[in-house]
Amino acid sequence: MNPVIETIMSHRSIRQFKDERISNEQISSIIKAAQMAPSSRFMQTYSIIGITNPLIKKELGKITGLTYVENNGHFLLFCADLHRLTIKASDKEKQNMQDMLESTQFYQIATIDASLAAQNAALAAESMGLGVVYIGAIAKGLPEIDKLLNIPSHVIPLFGMAIGFPDQQPEIKPRLPLEAVYFENQYNTNMDEQQELIEGYDQKMKAYYETRSENQRADTWSCKNIALFQKKADAHFSQYVKEKRMNLL
Amino acid sequence: MNPVIETIMSHRSIRQFKDERISNEQISSIIKAAQMAPSSRFMQTYSIIGITNPLIKKELGKITGLTYVENNGHFLLFCADLHRLTIKASDKEKQNMQDMLESTQFYQIATIDASLAAQNAALAAESMGLGVVYIGAIAKGLPEIDKLLNIPSHVIPLFGMAIGFPDQQPEIKPRLPLEAVYFENQYNTNMDEQQELIEGYDQKMKAYYETRSENQRADTWSCKNIALFQKKADAHFSQYVKEKRMNLL
Repeated sequence: MNPVIETIMSHRSIRQFKDERISNEQISSIIKAAQMAPSSRFMQTYSIIGITNPLIKKELGKITGLTYVENNGHFLLFCADLHRLTIKASDKEKQNMQDMLESTQFYQIATIDASLAAQNAALAAESMGLGVVYIGAIAKGLPEIDKLLNIPSHVIPLFGMAIGFPDQQPEIKPRLPLEAVYFENQYNTNMDEQQELIEGYDQKMKAYYETRSENQRADTWSCKNIALFQKKADAHFSQYVKEKRMNLL
Repeated sequence: MNPVIETIMSHRSIRQFKDERISNEQISSIIKAAQMAPSSRFMQTYSIIGITNPLIKKELGKITGLTYVENNGHFLLFCADLHRLTIKASDKEKQNMQDMLESTQFYQIATIDASLAAQNAALAAESMGLGVVYIGAIAKGLPEIDKLLNIPSHVIPLFGMAIGFPDQQPEIKPRLPLEAVYFENQYNTNMDEQQELIEGYDQKMKAYYETRSENQRADTWSCKNIALFQKKADAHFSQYVKEKRMNLL
């Protein structure tokens, strides 16, 4: 196993950090690593906002309800960003750009660009012995975050990333069996096979949830997902995206 | 620079591969690396389809118009996949899940999950001396690909990835200045500053496009992007996503 694959295979999310900021040199390496990710048509349609102001971190901690959003070595917010593409356009060109800026296709493209950059950032941080955790819970207060960070149209925050010196060493979570996520030549729609694979994985995760060092509970992977999806969709979410003039067409 | 950051910083897309398949062992390492990516609420909402059938590869080459989609060491298709979450649900539970399955929020989440997995796969491949290129051009024929690969509802192909033994060594493309993508505490809406940064980058990219070893042209980064966005949005794209029962709410 080479050092890259070793770093990848050692990933666990870290949610408890030492009270120590990461250095500006580390931040710079992490951002430069993010920038080296591939991007669709080389458009680089993402932005990253680093939060150093303790008041803003406190506010983000409140919005997400997560202590480690406030208490970490650094906090990054990853945004899908189509706005930058318009900066050098004339008024007339800008006008003509609206249709594609507002399309689902470019909302998806910018989301992918930002995600590829983020995973480079995460691995760069982990390769330096830092821990990271992605923060999807920013979705709980997108309009507030938007205002707080002065985010323009055609830009939306996708997720945060807390980074820092790990103050815990959780177990690595077992993943789905390879055959459940990887198919050859066509999607596997043999439901008996798929059910059997998921059933086996549910038993494995049940044992994991029951015996892990923290946050033990009685649950399976399927049960927790199915329970989560019994709720109604959050209409505010798609409304927010549309108000930012993305995903309209 | 540690070996992980070195691999990240050496990325260039490879579009010409030697006529040699990568080994099953390499494929397995790449997929396992993909699986170790973080995923939202540990839902692992992605699937990967590896294409080994030469007829299907030929077809995908035709759809995308790209020779390297057919000619490579292996081809992966990354999909956002919410379908798997329903496999163990009862009919009644499945019914209740539809709302969230059809939401923009979970379309975005699955897109991010698949992208994080893909970037792990890309770096794992590159760490073994292989080259990769992401293929966004599958968007040219989503309904055909859907049929060809038997893809169920709540699953959509996002992009392909051609992998193989590199038969070219292109230059590394200069990225945007760090200050153009990374902001502190709030989004930089100082347009004069941003315009100056992009102007400087346009000049840098102009020199790059004029002097690189292949595919030379007279262009700037901004001009090529603005030109691309003068077209109308592809309505078939968002229609396809909606037909797959995603991004509806």
